[in-house]
Amino acid sequence: MKIYFDNAATTFVCKEAADAVLSAMTDTYGNPSSLHLMGMDAENIVKNSRGEISKKLDVPAECIYFTSGGTESNNTAIFGACLKTNLKGNRIITTKAEHPAVLEPFKVLAGKGFDVQYVNLLPSGTIDLSHLESLLTPDTVFVSIMGINNETGCIMPMTDAVSLIRKKSPNALIHSDIVQAFCKVSMANVDLASVSSHKVHGPKGVGALYIKKGVHINPLMFGGGQEKAFRSGTENVPGIAGFGAAVKKADMAKDNEHTAMLKSALINAVSDIPDIRINGEDTSSHVLNVSFKGVRSEVFLHTLESNGIMVSSGSACSSNKPSPSHVLTAMGVDSKSIDSAIRFSFSVYNTIDEINYCADVIKRELPILRRIMR
Amino acid sequence: MKIYFDNAATTFVCKEAADAVLSAMTDTYGNPSSLHLMGMDAENIVKNSRGEISKKLDVPAECIYFTSGGTESNNTAIFGACLKTNLKGNRIITTKAEHPAVLEPFKVLAGKGFDVQYVNLLPSGTIDLSHLESLLTPDTVFVSIMGINNETGCIMPMTDAVSLIRKKSPNALIHSDIVQAFCKVSMANVDLASVSSHKVHGPKGVGALYIKKGVHINPLMFGGGQEKAFRSGTENVPGIAGFGAAVKKADMAKDNEHTAMLKSALINAVSDIPDIRINGEDTSSHVLNVSFKGVRSEVFLHTLESNGIMVSSGSACSSNKPSPSHVLTAMGVDSKSIDSAIRFSFSVYNTIDEINYCADVIKRELPILRRIMR
Repeated sequence: MKIYFDNAATTFVCKEAADAVLSAMTDTYGNPSSLHLMGMDAENIVKNSRGEISKKLDVPAECIYFTSGGTESNNTAIFGACLKTNLKGNRIITTKAEHPAVLEPFKVLAGKGFDVQYVNLLPSGTIDLSHLESLLTPDTVFVSIMGINNETGCIMPMTDAVSLIRKKSPNALIHSDIVQAFCKVSMANVDLASVSSHKVHGPKGVGALYIKKGVHINPLMFGGGQEKAFRSGTENVPGIAGFGAAVKKADMAKDNEHTAMLKSALINAVSDIPDIRINGEDTSSHVLNVSFKGVRSEVFLHTLESNGIMVSSGSACSSNKPSPSHVLTAMGVDSKSIDSAIRFSFSVYNTIDEINYCADVIKRELPILRRIMR
Repeated sequence: MKIYFDNAATTFVCKEAADAVLSAMTDTYGNPSSLHLMGMDAENIVKNSRGEISKKLDVPAECIYFTSGGTESNNTAIFGACLKTNLKGNRIITTKAEHPAVLEPFKVLAGKGFDVQYVNLLPSGTIDLSHLESLLTPDTVFVSIMGINNETGCIMPMTDAVSLIRKKSPNALIHSDIVQAFCKVSMANVDLASVSSHKVHGPKGVGALYIKKGVHINPLMFGGGQEKAFRSGTENVPGIAGFGAAVKKADMAKDNEHTAMLKSALINAVSDIPDIRINGEDTSSHVLNVSFKGVRSEVFLHTLESNGIMVSSGSACSSNKPSPSHVLTAMGVDSKSIDSAIRFSFSVYNTIDEINYCADVIKRELPILRRIMR
């Protein structure tokens, strides 16, 4: 029995994507830079995947640049935009909800003298738009706001945020880390956006950066001039092939409908348990963050695991360092709820039977653990 | 009929590596940062591959950091070492034989005020050690010399070079781009070295940087703190799995013996053709660079291709931009030979029958092309 409810951490690679990876590894394995037919075949794979990703984002294909993943895309967007010469200001803004792959580059820039500001979160988990508005100045040159938070699933009000930024900080480039939002909600009218393959049933090790036409930022890496000299390095053709196949297969409306059904079912099943707290409002259908007060996250996580259910105690992306969630903290969640938060994250491959089984396990194990922990 | 003699550009993924990739995509697909069993399984894959690569390099496992490939490794080594504060000097040195993934970052550093010096090549294609010696100063802080040149296969005299550098520039960190040399020759006693998976029958999109114990350089990317906070971003577990499997399978002595046999056979077969030039001495067994004077590289490449033989007109890594080889130019090769240079590059999967067929095609087609071109 293995029930994988950790799809916000990573997803398994769907058959279509795995087949595409395999074929690019063993059949069309040429280097896209090679001048012979095998090079052209590899180049076509990259071209087709670029098309799939751009179609899903509803942007021109030439605005998609492949990278090694979400972290590289975020680092490239942030450093590439902020370390340009002739910036028209010194203020850069992000939010307290961001992933470390955004927060850490901002810390580096703070160390280089940038005036870094962080937008507060509302108790609901979304960003405080009036606080954002108060931070926006004419000398703000860069704003980064994620599409969907990875811990709570909160969908950020990107359209409103973008309108505010364009009005009050016309010199600012707007970046969005849409690693969790890609194939779940539409992209707002931003200038830069980061996506990752392994969150949408594609392979790990590949992602992309969307750069709006007319927007110019510095590359992070230099070399052979691949990706129109913006991202050097032999293209990860198998990874790109898998990414394209996974994205092609994703069906936003249908997939959301399925995960929303699963999520409602789990919420309904646990709603009569005393002392629980659902963290976040306006959340994506693929994430459910629940605090089972009285039992520490790590303990409950391992109990669920021993029953074959894989979940997260929060973000999985901070490499084995368990620490109180900065997101729940910024939302003003009480510490008992923070310490007991569990993130269930679903995919279209999960089933209602898995949900029912999981609910049964929770209802059986939680009272025992609460008694032990008391 | 498909004969792939372009193994210095990229290699097909061997069965062992492809199986490892597939398994990590569809079975052990967890995120190494996840606290549950599936995270641990994924972490173990990364650990095992780290072990295979460190064993082949004869270094401790904890000195291996996974990256997205050779270009990222080179960029990280160069920028990570040279953009540190408190450098004890301003001179940085590389060679005229390097790959663009080294030359381009050096150009960027030249633009930042570094005193960049380039070591000349001898007509043999190896670096001029006395020129290197003359460039080494006490304020030299970084030297990058490749292990094996990608165009000619020339094996650089790394042991002698390292001795000179340690003696004359004790403050210098020594980096080597050993992307072509990995699994072909042993690594010298350098401080930093870049390797790539897709040159050794592993998948594209993954590489590693060796950092000697006690050597500290800046990261290129920031985020979740993976790879001991040196290389953030969810680990490319399938890619790393494939890289490890490919390296485990590689047998330096046996593989070299096989490719040396193939190379000798092709040299013998073409040696009676008039007006040819073999470029480079002291070359690796996997590369043979030959100028078939009177026929432009691109023309001959396509003739060979139409006979099912894939070769390169030089480096494949400069993304579709054919331009006179900077390596052959630095060796002082005459322009007629530069314009007609073809790189054959072999792997352990090539056969003597393929060599014989290729020799027959060359002997049949070359005189016809030479007559047409005259």
